Amino acid sequence: MLSQALYDIPQLLHLLGLTDVIISPGSRSAPLTIAFSRHSGFKKYVIPDERSAAFVALGISLQSQKPTVLVCTSGSAAYNYAPAVAEAYYQQVPLLVLTADRPPEWIDQWDGQTIRQQNIYGQHVLKSFQLPSTDLSDVAQWHMLRIVNEATVLSMGDTPGPVHINVPLREPLYTSENYQYTEKLKFWTQDTVRASPSKNLVGSIKYRRVLLLVGQQNYVPGIDELLAKLASLIPVVCDAQSNYSHLENVITHHDLFLSGQLSEELRPELVISFGKSIISKNLKVFLRNVLGLEHWHITETDFTPDTFQSLTKVIRGRADSLLDLLTDQDYNTSYLTSWRNLQVKTGNYLQQAFDKQDFGEFEAVKILLDHLPEKVDIHISNSMPIRYVNFLGVHHADQHIFVNRGTSGIDGTVSTAVGSCLYSGNKTVLVTGDLAFFYDRNGLWHNHPPKDLLIILLNNHGGGIFGMIPGPRSQPEIHDYFITDQKLSAEHTTKDFNMEYIRINTREALHQELPSMMAKKGLRLIEIETQTSVNQEVFDKIKSEIKAL
Amino acid sequence: MLSQALYDIPQLLHLLGLTDVIISPGSRSAPLTIAFSRHSGFKKYVIPDERSAAFVALGISLQSQKPTVLVCTSGSAAYNYAPAVAEAYYQQVPLLVLTADRPPEWIDQWDGQTIRQQNIYGQHVLKSFQLPSTDLSDVAQWHMLRIVNEATVLSMGDTPGPVHINVPLREPLYTSENYQYTEKLKFWTQDTVRASPSKNLVGSIKYRRVLLLVGQQNYVPGIDELLAKLASLIPVVCDAQSNYSHLENVITHHDLFLSGQLSEELRPELVISFGKSIISKNLKVFLRNVLGLEHWHITETDFTPDTFQSLTKVIRGRADSLLDLLTDQDYNTSYLTSWRNLQVKTGNYLQQAFDKQDFGEFEAVKILLDHLPEKVDIHISNSMPIRYVNFLGVHHADQHIFVNRGTSGIDGTVSTAVGSCLYSGNKTVLVTGDLAFFYDRNGLWHNHPPKDLLIILLNNHGGGIFGMIPGPRSQPEIHDYFITDQKLSAEHTTKDFNMEYIRINTREALHQELPSMMAKKGLRLIEIETQTSVNQEVFDKIKSEIKAL
Repeated sequence: MLSQALYDIPQLLHLLGLTDVIISPGSRSAPLTIAFSRHSGFKKYVIPDERSAAFVALGISLQSQKPTVLVCTSGSAAYNYAPAVAEAYYQQVPLLVLTADRPPEWIDQWDGQTIRQQNIYGQHVLKSFQLPSTDLSDVAQWHMLRIVNEATVLSMGDTPGPVHINVPLREPLYTSENYQYTEKLKFWTQDTVRASPSKNLVGSIKYRRVLLLVGQQNYVPGIDELLAKLASLIPVVCDAQSNYSHLENVITHHDLFLSGQLSEELRPELVISFGKSIISKNLKVFLRNVLGLEHWHITETDFTPDTFQSLTKVIRGRADSLLDLLTDQDYNTSYLTSWRNLQVKTGNYLQQAFDKQDFGEFEAVKILLDHLPEKVDIHISNSMPIRYVNFLGVHHADQHIFVNRGTSGIDGTVSTAVGSCLYSGNKTVLVTGDLAFFYDRNGLWHNHPPKDLLIILLNNHGGGIFGMIPGPRSQPEIHDYFITDQKLSAEHTTKDFNMEYIRINTREALHQELPSMMAKKGLRLIEIETQTSVNQEVFDKIKSEIKAL
Repeated sequence: MLSQALYDIPQLLHLLGLTDVIISPGSRSAPLTIAFSRHSGFKKYVIPDERSAAFVALGISLQSQKPTVLVCTSGSAAYNYAPAVAEAYYQQVPLLVLTADRPPEWIDQWDGQTIRQQNIYGQHVLKSFQLPSTDLSDVAQWHMLRIVNEATVLSMGDTPGPVHINVPLREPLYTSENYQYTEKLKFWTQDTVRASPSKNLVGSIKYRRVLLLVGQQNYVPGIDELLAKLASLIPVVCDAQSNYSHLENVITHHDLFLSGQLSEELRPELVISFGKSIISKNLKVFLRNVLGLEHWHITETDFTPDTFQSLTKVIRGRADSLLDLLTDQDYNTSYLTSWRNLQVKTGNYLQQAFDKQDFGEFEAVKILLDHLPEKVDIHISNSMPIRYVNFLGVHHADQHIFVNRGTSGIDGTVSTAVGSCLYSGNKTVLVTGDLAFFYDRNGLWHNHPPKDLLIILLNNHGGGIFGMIPGPRSQPEIHDYFITDQKLSAEHTTKDFNMEYIRINTREALHQELPSMMAKKGLRLIEIETQTSVNQEVFDKIKSEIKAL
């Protein structure tokens, strides 16, 4: 028996502007499934593996900038959401997680699919709510919808993120009654009003060696010009996932030319940052080594990491209005020149860096980035693929980069790309390593084929990154316990999911096949098989040649 | 730099009797990986998907009855263990979960692969420990090993289960130093001494309609005779996963002949139970409907569910010594006869129940159970497969049944069977539905092929159970949101993993192929494709015919 309030949850979420729900089939969740499936305001997806379902939801939310609703049954289903929930928490992506549960009286009684679901996501949700059980009085029904409203508003607030609502449901779970949604439900929304910053906030900056650093964030069109102007005054270091690495004059090759050691000519006095995480460990270590560094971080959220151990000021507000105040200051031009020179030298070097080398995955990524259409969404897996992209940067404003750098896992890459493409319909390219691809192939296991997703699978048959970084490389266990050969090629998987498939292992083949595969629609995959030993050699050579520039 | 104590963790666990470790590759976990990989006392497995790795560990522990060690890197890796950890918690299977972590100073600082790992498994571990960070004083090194000792002893205690140790590790993570294990580490073990129960504990039972109920547990050989003797005095109802359903005269078809409604002739005055969960919902509802029922539960653990809402006495101790006291009482023989008659009638009926019906998965399970070798481990997935097996029971003492009924999820079935076979080397059969199989195919994605695992895949291309149970069946959403067609067949998967593969869809083919596929070794799969509509029809017919017996 559904209570009217339970049946009205989709209606409330619809009124709050939510549009997408992912359902993983189950019995205890039937009342929620039925309530959502009958509501015409939702696009519904059915995905059996909850781990993938939650990452697909993350991908949808990355595009929609709204909480995607997740519905699962009771028991360990809820735990399979957890990796994506943690990613959403640290990447600050809204999600509304509805986990069906047995009512309290059947917890710890050896009933099937019953675990302790309250607060199951621990500190990785903004908040965890418990709905009242069914058989509801009027006030409890009001309370139920009030909780759902609060949770949704919280998920979409200034610090967006995942919110959990646990939903205990008593039997009977099915009914023949014909419920109607309440058309005019009361609901509330939330807005933040921010004053424009006054000149006094920044004042006259006493430093002349100022560096602007942009971490992970969504591309916001209005800020391009401002950043380009700033890039003519001070070094503007753009992480690949900042989505500003296409701008002229910004610094994008820093992870290649910085060594982690302090270089006096590059030493800033003040770093101003906005956006979330940055990829380059060299940059982090370099800045941590600057004695007496001042660091201002601009953010609308209430999350304040001190990534360089030098945080001195947090400015809560939008980056654009504050950056405007920075254009009007005096800076040391030779400081800018030092950074620019390294950027230009490295950029020029990269144009011919692969000419005399064997073909490997670094070059494959370069060829791909050089042949992307001007408008494309690029999803990149963690480990080496995002490092390669971060070394190189992209060329156009509408080449948007997505990486799960909240927790930097390899566990939901395929699903996130699928979700992103399902929502946007955009041409989408996923660049992934083999471990990340096979780990999450259940992201393709459902009946919702994305319109236009090209997967570039860099298959070196193992965790190639461990051959790249100096620590594990020198250990006798490197092959058995770090790289860990995995033998799969994607061929059978592509047959399972009706994907067009090409396997290549030369630069010539990639140049030849890429344009037509890129131009097509639907789900397709290019498998680029490379040797870890070659990838390692190329990478070493490039690093040492850049050092010698 | 490894501290000596960290390097000695495998040595301590070896001295405590542990033998198996599963490593999922990662960077932060390198010191643990190295310490385990160099220790000759451990059998080591490398499994990239942490969700599967943890279920493989569960499968190993089900056989070894010891904690299997899990080692993963920092970040969401730990969360991918969570479904198996929850299963182990409720199934009371020992696991020792070692999650590498960044040191506290880098939590919430946008460092890669960093989440809030302390207590990450919430209430689904016996206890969660935090090791001191590295750079250790002598007392901290002692403390580190003391924690590992305590955690291990706890995991193997009277209430076995998963224990979590979070291991923060500072860089450098690699070293060229040549560590030696400390040969004679101090360690402690734990034993429980229980007095034999005196006659007074049970006394003279005042009830004459007594029912003995055995839930999920490992087969313990010594108890067969005692149970057989009791089965000649009172109804002994054996769940399939009790591993006593082979005994003569015990009740095994109860889930078929009970309807959930109270039947006066079957009504017990006293239920005595041991073991863990039971599968039959009909039995649960039947017992909950008995007014004034008395229920005694025998357990060595500290977990006391009140499954029938009638618990009156908990006896902490071993079942065998207590059951002995029950043989010496007066019982109502006509009460036993009522149960036995239904058991015999249903058993006879089942011998010819499928003769005039179309071939479906219920019959496939019966054919399989009738053709099992006398010594075999049978893993069964949740949802319909375990219900079919529970309807039918097995025939021999050494046909051991394993089901993940702790949380009753479908998320780790393949991995659990793989782990079980990896440890035992026994002939192992996995009976699984298609959703459970594809959900967890990463359980096969590693380089440790089990010696003798035959997978029987019942593929009805969806969640067939929803067509079986009355609630969802009557909903218009049944096909799109409950059954949810999944289109995969196992053919490509078997190619990925070099498995022998046969697809069949008739009873004749099954009769013909089963014996030779059963006799072989290695990894192989029989895919039995059936129609949900046929499965549903057969099931309905059998239920109604049994009702009319």
